[in-house]
Amino acid sequence: ERKIRAPRGPELNAKSWLTEAPLRMLMNNLDAEVAERPNELVVYGGIGRAARDWKSFDVITRSLKELNEDETLLVQSGKPVGVFKTHADAPRVLIANSNLVPHWANWDHFHKLDKVGLMMYGQMTAGSWIYIGSQGIVQGTYETFVEVGRQHYGGDLTGKWILSGGLGGMGGAQPLAATMAGACMLAVECQPSRIEMRLETGYLDHKTDSLDAALEMITTACAEGRAISVGLLGNAGEVFPELVKRGVRPDVVTDQTSAHDPLNGYLPIGWSLDRWERTKTSDPAEVTRAAKESMKVQVEAMLDFHKQGVPTLDYGNNIRQMALEMGSEHAFDFPGFVPAYIRPLFCRGIGPFRWAALSGDPEDIYKTDTKVKELIPDNPHLHNWLDMARERIQFQGLPSRICWVGLGERARLGLAFNEMVAKGELSAPVVIGRDHLDSGSVASPNRETEGMKDGSDAVSDWPLLNALLNCASGATWVSLHHGGGVGMGFSQHSGMVIVADGTDEAARRLERVLTNDPATGVMRHADAGYDIAIDCAREHGLNLPMLD
Amino acid sequence: ERKIRAPRGPELNAKSWLTEAPLRMLMNNLDAEVAERPNELVVYGGIGRAARDWKSFDVITRSLKELNEDETLLVQSGKPVGVFKTHADAPRVLIANSNLVPHWANWDHFHKLDKVGLMMYGQMTAGSWIYIGSQGIVQGTYETFVEVGRQHYGGDLTGKWILSGGLGGMGGAQPLAATMAGACMLAVECQPSRIEMRLETGYLDHKTDSLDAALEMITTACAEGRAISVGLLGNAGEVFPELVKRGVRPDVVTDQTSAHDPLNGYLPIGWSLDRWERTKTSDPAEVTRAAKESMKVQVEAMLDFHKQGVPTLDYGNNIRQMALEMGSEHAFDFPGFVPAYIRPLFCRGIGPFRWAALSGDPEDIYKTDTKVKELIPDNPHLHNWLDMARERIQFQGLPSRICWVGLGERARLGLAFNEMVAKGELSAPVVIGRDHLDSGSVASPNRETEGMKDGSDAVSDWPLLNALLNCASGATWVSLHHGGGVGMGFSQHSGMVIVADGTDEAARRLERVLTNDPATGVMRHADAGYDIAIDCAREHGLNLPMLD
Ligand SMILES: NC(=O)c1ccc[n+]([C@@H]2O[C@H](COP(=O)([O-])OP(=O)(O)OC[C@H]3O[C@@H](n4cnc5c(N)ncnc54)[C@H](O)[C@@H]3O)[C@@H](O)[C@H]2O)c1
Ligand SMILES: NC(=O)c1ccc[n+]([C@@H]2O[C@H](COP(=O)([O-])OP(=O)(O)OC[C@H]3O[C@@H](n4cnc5c(N)ncnc54)[C@H](O)[C@@H]3O)[C@@H](O)[C@H]2O)c1
Repeated sequence: ERKIRAPRGPELNAKSWLTEAPLRMLMNNLDAEVAERPNELVVYGGIGRAARDWKSFDVITRSLKELNEDETLLVQSGKPVGVFKTHADAPRVLIANSNLVPHWANWDHFHKLDKVGLMMYGQMTAGSWIYIGSQGIVQGTYETFVEVGRQHYGGDLTGKWILSGGLGGMGGAQPLAATMAGACMLAVECQPSRIEMRLETGYLDHKTDSLDAALEMITTACAEGRAISVGLLGNAGEVFPELVKRGVRPDVVTDQTSAHDPLNGYLPIGWSLDRWERTKTSDPAEVTRAAKESMKVQVEAMLDFHKQGVPTLDYGNNIRQMALEMGSEHAFDFPGFVPAYIRPLFCRGIGPFRWAALSGDPEDIYKTDTKVKELIPDNPHLHNWLDMARERIQFQGLPSRICWVGLGERARLGLAFNEMVAKGELSAPVVIGRDHLDSGSVASPNRETEGMKDGSDAVSDWPLLNALLNCASGATWVSLHHGGGVGMGFSQHSGMVIVADGTDEAARRLERVLTNDPATGVMRHADAGYDIAIDCAREHGLNLPMLD
Repeated sequence: ERKIRAPRGPELNAKSWLTEAPLRMLMNNLDAEVAERPNELVVYGGIGRAARDWKSFDVITRSLKELNEDETLLVQSGKPVGVFKTHADAPRVLIANSNLVPHWANWDHFHKLDKVGLMMYGQMTAGSWIYIGSQGIVQGTYETFVEVGRQHYGGDLTGKWILSGGLGGMGGAQPLAATMAGACMLAVECQPSRIEMRLETGYLDHKTDSLDAALEMITTACAEGRAISVGLLGNAGEVFPELVKRGVRPDVVTDQTSAHDPLNGYLPIGWSLDRWERTKTSDPAEVTRAAKESMKVQVEAMLDFHKQGVPTLDYGNNIRQMALEMGSEHAFDFPGFVPAYIRPLFCRGIGPFRWAALSGDPEDIYKTDTKVKELIPDNPHLHNWLDMARERIQFQGLPSRICWVGLGERARLGLAFNEMVAKGELSAPVVIGRDHLDSGSVASPNRETEGMKDGSDAVSDWPLLNALLNCASGATWVSLHHGGGVGMGFSQHSGMVIVADGTDEAARRLERVLTNDPATGVMRHADAGYDIAIDCAREHGLNLPMLD
């Protein structure tokens, strides 16, 4: 059993901060506080790994320690395969994970290669060494709710409440994200243990098994303008239609039961947990049928809300598809969350920007929090997020922060952080990166690029150009992955991380990379015909030659 | 109707040679001497385009003329989509063509996108602006034959003869390549017009419709050590078995009928050309059946030669697959040309290196020919190729040369050419590039990466890393394509071109790029366990950290 923990403090183990940074971040991804199964090198997302195996891990760390400032290490699906002479402004590490020629790009072929040690699943930020724990999902959900508020409620969710189902691994972030965004949440969850766990970590405020009591709490809080969350023990497939029947009108409706997996993820209406468990093994087909039938009932209720004008969204659990397959013809009448709420952000290059303090010192992050507020004074949602995150989210591994900012702001923040390092305000350099789920870095027709205006959902030239441009602009490491989020065959995406070590050279690189990277997102959406992106491009003076 | 011809001479139309070069090479790809259908912007390979449409072409050329020395132009499937600030050592152009998320990576989806103007098929060197006409196919075939000679005949094909079928678009290069390699060739072709055309261009020496006469010519020439080629009017499906029956033993056997397309590409045994044409429309299923039945007969004859120990190879026309489908169980007993003959070259980073004189002056190429011989004095096959190419192959568009050289040699030549530019020995800069079909730049399980030793045929991390590394090393333009050669879904590959403008900066970039690019090929093959590659890596001191 190996225990990995990134070195802290200002001392170098590698020859420069440009190589010390990937060293620490790789190790941080495998920190027991961060990784789901560190012993198997699994960081998150099922089997998303940071390195192919322990030998590869050891050789990567050794190579990084030896790497010179004009050299570049190549990593192929988690294995270090070569060190090459490049130059000071080139990336120090180039990564390609899980990429397969399309005709062979399926789980079967992948597993065959994985089994014989030729491949690794990199997910998004697991194999590209910039995963920072559950802060990411809280923030993504927060941004979605805030954007719902912007589009439907004049930017203010005070006194509004969100109805949802599921308090599992990801869904458990919903009540915290909702209250952070200023809204109340009623979350229907069928397993008491899930409700308990969320209460313990402070992500959920109250629990009850009575719908009346839940509505009472929500109504009172809304009337008083307080944001609270209530976990209701129950079946979403029963509660949603009951609310319709009673004429109760939530302000937002969504769902995060595991509908994508009808055998294991959704309790059929009227079933006990016990019967569910037993039938999974004794008659899996019957569970699947019953679960999908119940999902249809829930979706019909969601469609009723939608028809009443309540903002209703699919949060990427595929529940619409399941209902459609059971004969609910209009299932896709309400939208997926990306086209409806995230895409307008992507159009302005706004996405999951993040940074980590290589010092290991939480104070470094708190100082950058303050700096962000100072530089972006007029964004109350952002300020609120930073305050609430500090208060309610624990750091996992190296202290880090995520916040959704866009073109212009990213470069501004990067340069400011670099200056803070230069002046000694921070105790060591920081790394700045993002999720692959971002504005210009992913092609994923079932999620991030669902329903693009021009029909270009499946065109993956864009993330490839994003990676090449980040490489040409001087990111510290650049990655190209396949299959993240939605699995083999369904996505291609790229990542980048850049070091702010306080030098002038870093400042030049930061300005280029943190401008160009979100700008490719604005470009991609402008090319697809989105007005917000076209306006944003004009406003920032982007040179998009076919636009003129 | 537009007539495109690249500017010649030492005067710049753009701001530097780094942008003048892609400008001229894009235009050269659409020169009527070079392109198959310049009006449709089609360069070669069916529908391989240089730009998406004329508007895109015009804006690319305008952008290149305006581009500054710290800017980079992004091209998405032949359309210029953005200009970004980078730095002097970064590529001036980054290209991604025809890339689709794997689940949608098929011709149907591609055609849908192509039709509405969202995509373009880039083939390999069409969309990456380094196609140089038929010299490439002659040289590729020459190298294959030379390697057959090396492996089976001590490097000397004098007095040996090659049996093949088909003198079409690509296959017509066979007789010239064979005689250049020192061997005689008997090529069976069923259409008189094809034989005539090859005689006219000097690619073929003699024609006959008598097998006896053909064998007489071949036998005599072989005995006298003369390399001649004979086009025999006939059906390969009949002639191949007849030779087996007679006990005639060729020294090498292959085939380049269009077996991959059984409806249009292979004349069934016993059919007249007239019946073939008529039946294609009246009863296509019958043509297909009869053609495949005949291919089976031809493959059985090839298997007989193979059993006798005659080197027998599939030249990428899929004839083995067709025979297998008709019940020829052992069809795959003889190998494809890449695993058998090209891979040993790839293991040493040897592949289709090429360069073009931006001056337009043939003398510039002749001077580089001389320089190549001077720097690589001990390679008679290379010298022979250069002499014969000068004598027998006409330039198309800007004068250019292709020759297969490997790790070490490529950088040596690049630096020497740069020095020639610096000293004024050449009248303008040259560009140096290669095909995507190269050692480290392609994943294509039905062709270039068929039957890899470790089973990693479909792993496309390698070409992606190749592109990223070329970008990080300072190539002038870098491209990432999908579907070249074998069609949508079946390949991913990358290209690079670099300018030798005589400056010291160019020298530094040339040394890095022309070392790293073939080195990724050696690395990829060493990783797959090929001894030749492992030895080559050691010999050149490559840093492959998992090898030690
Ligand atoms: N697109 C995205 O970015 C994104 C992000 C987060 C989650 N998701 C999707 O959301 C879903 C949830 O993810 P997770 O990680 O939380 O899954 P999970 O399996 O950990 O949690 C699902 C929860 O739903 C509960 N549940 C099941 N049936 C129920 C019913 N009938 N009524 C009430 N509760 C019920 C389960 O008890 C469980 O706690 C998944 O489908 C996931 O793919 C998508
Ligand atoms: N893998 C590679 O790199 C590579 C390179 C070159 C060619 N190829 C393959 O080689 C094949 C030929 O390519 P091409 O461009 O020359 O095609 P083509 O269609 O232009 O030529 C095929 C020729 O074969 C002749 N032919 C057909 N049936 C015949 C028969 N029964 N007997 C004698 N002649 C017959 C035709 O008359 C025609 O001239 C294709 O399948 C192509 O894919 C592969």
